[in-house]
Amino acid sequence: MAETRQEPLFERVAIVGVGLIGSSIAHAVRRGGLAGRIVATDASPEVRARVAELGLADEIVETAAEAAEEADLVIVCTPIGASGAVAAEIGPNLKPGAILTDVGSVKGAVIREMGPHVPAHAHFVPAHPIAGTEHSGPDAGFAELFDGRWAIVVSESGTDAEAAAKVRALWEGMGAKVDTMTSEHHDLVFAIVSHVPHLIAYNIVGTAADLEDVTQSEVIKYSASGFRDFTRIAASDPTMWRDVFLNNRDAVLQMLGRFTEDLTALQRAIRWGEGDKLFELFTRTRAIRRGIIEQGQDTAAPDFGRRATPQTKS
Amino acid sequence: MAETRQEPLFERVAIVGVGLIGSSIAHAVRRGGLAGRIVATDASPEVRARVAELGLADEIVETAAEAAEEADLVIVCTPIGASGAVAAEIGPNLKPGAILTDVGSVKGAVIREMGPHVPAHAHFVPAHPIAGTEHSGPDAGFAELFDGRWAIVVSESGTDAEAAAKVRALWEGMGAKVDTMTSEHHDLVFAIVSHVPHLIAYNIVGTAADLEDVTQSEVIKYSASGFRDFTRIAASDPTMWRDVFLNNRDAVLQMLGRFTEDLTALQRAIRWGEGDKLFELFTRTRAIRRGIIEQGQDTAAPDFGRRATPQTKS
Ligand SMILES: NC(=O)c1ccc[n+]([C@@H]2O[C@H](COP(=O)([O-])OP(=O)(O)OC[C@H]3O[C@@H](n4cnc5c(N)ncnc54)[C@H](OP(=O)(O)O)[C@@H]3O)[C@@H](O)[C@H]2O)c1
Ligand SMILES: NC(=O)c1ccc[n+]([C@@H]2O[C@H](COP(=O)([O-])OP(=O)(O)OC[C@H]3O[C@@H](n4cnc5c(N)ncnc54)[C@H](OP(=O)(O)O)[C@@H]3O)[C@@H](O)[C@H]2O)c1
Repeated sequence: MAETRQEPLFERVAIVGVGLIGSSIAHAVRRGGLAGRIVATDASPEVRARVAELGLADEIVETAAEAAEEADLVIVCTPIGASGAVAAEIGPNLKPGAILTDVGSVKGAVIREMGPHVPAHAHFVPAHPIAGTEHSGPDAGFAELFDGRWAIVVSESGTDAEAAAKVRALWEGMGAKVDTMTSEHHDLVFAIVSHVPHLIAYNIVGTAADLEDVTQSEVIKYSASGFRDFTRIAASDPTMWRDVFLNNRDAVLQMLGRFTEDLTALQRAIRWGEGDKLFELFTRTRAIRRGIIEQGQDTAAPDFGRRATPQTKS
Repeated sequence: MAETRQEPLFERVAIVGVGLIGSSIAHAVRRGGLAGRIVATDASPEVRARVAELGLADEIVETAAEAAEEADLVIVCTPIGASGAVAAEIGPNLKPGAILTDVGSVKGAVIREMGPHVPAHAHFVPAHPIAGTEHSGPDAGFAELFDGRWAIVVSESGTDAEAAAKVRALWEGMGAKVDTMTSEHHDLVFAIVSHVPHLIAYNIVGTAADLEDVTQSEVIKYSASGFRDFTRIAASDPTMWRDVFLNNRDAVLQMLGRFTEDLTALQRAIRWGEGDKLFELFTRTRAIRRGIIEQGQDTAAPDFGRRATPQTKS
């Protein structure tokens, strides 16, 4: 997708937290020739050792503070719950003109937590790639993860235009399409397209696991009839998702309120045998599916257009 | 999977309703050499014409009553809502020893509707294959649909053992694995593994479509972050699913009650910032996913182990 360029976009890029997203960024930055040098760090010594084995970075350091030193760009790829502490640690080490960015799935809370630690001489441009798998850790990453996917770059009233343009170029260089929006709007959009869907997937899998009349082995055996897709979503990383719900509380509760209101109406239609109401909804929802297929966000084929993750993990 | 046998299992097989399931049965019965002759009918003249074009049956007739005449096995593959009327029409034409079966996704209501029309000299053995796609109609069917999938054959106190064994052999001959259970248990199991998951998928897609703060085009654009899987489920056939909810009302409402109870607790945990409760549930749900992968009901690979539908539809 992105061609290797003559001049790297950034001289020194620091990646803090080398899990699925951090390691995919390491692969994609290298593929795109976007950095003169990649420095990586992670809280876990095992992850650091694995990053070295996989050769994901030019330099591996023990602390985020060290990684940030002299960096032109610092990308924080830890779970959201750690981002405030990471910003506090690296803030004092950010050099003049340095850009700090992140990849967190929630933006308002991350800005509240990280923003205050960014010195006036540096720039903070939060971002969020709309790409992922249900796997975690440095072995899960691959260069193609962001190809053709959207990345949101947050733009608020105080955002530095030049820094925002560089973060935009970074994501384009990693193969993504970029959109810009405020953090508030971001959190509302992703509450409905991502956070609430994950919550209800976790919830129904939990409900099914707790039944007395239907055994867990029956649930597993007959999962192909609809349940299976929910279990895949509900196998996503618990730490990441706990942090999402704790940090996007208001938007999630607002969208969840709408969801349960609509579900109550549907429940009533079933109770009273109102077939027309059911039919009307079940027909209306097909239009959204058609839109998704037309926009190439999915295909009608049985593999659903998902790209293959390389099976060899190096 | 199934080998072509010397002696067909049934001399004359009638298929009533040649949509996705009916046409897949036609393909699979032929592949398995399970019928001496396949007679097909459908309420719609267009479908009958298409069945002729596709060469799915040896004989195409205009009415279910005609199809049932002299048949050794009649398989009703219409939507559930039509099954009572179809049974009333064919009942008088069933010959002594004939077996009547169906494929409906709900069993209790189908038995209540169809059962009374089956003459004492014939046998009624309801069934339900756990296989499908989100497509409908005679072009959507293919012989491999049931390969390696489960088929439930209903067994109640009055079920004729010999007839049940033949229906079991039919499904095995079409490549399926067969399980036996009562209609009551069936309807409870599929309420949780299939019906409620479809209902909440339809519901959230409807909720998203109705929002004022988030546009429909944003929902479509960013669907890859979780929502997309729900839209696929919510693109399933409206008639089929209306009939499922109208006909499995009690079990669906019971399971929906459990679901909303659990969701309310989760909502409260988010409101009060109880991260431990969220983390505990998000961890627990992974065990079910592991079970599904271990039992070969899905794979960890990105195409989710779904078999390819033949792209050529003949
Ligand atoms: N996964 C997705 O689908 C997806 C998509 C878009 C955005 N995101 C966002 O991406 C971020 C990372 O997600 P991920 O899926 O890459 O998670 P992940 O695979 O679990 O990786 C996170 C890494 O950060 C490390 N870490 C935790 N605390 C740290 C700290 N204080 N300092 C340095 N490293 C630390 C973790 O080490 P330990 O394992 O030892 O804790 C782990 O190696 C999250 O903010 C998430 O919201 C994820
Ligand atoms: N699709 C699945 O995933 C799935 C899985 C397991 C079981 N099932 C069950 O299989 C059954 C059929 O589903 P399907 O997906 O095959 O539906 P489908 O593709 O819509 O096919 C149903 C066919 O039956 C015809 N029909 C309707 N009323 C009829 C009548 N009174 N007499 C004769 N033909 C009639 C329809 O014609 P018109 O189109 O003109 O109405 C249509 O051609 C349902 O009971 C469903 O619960 C479905």
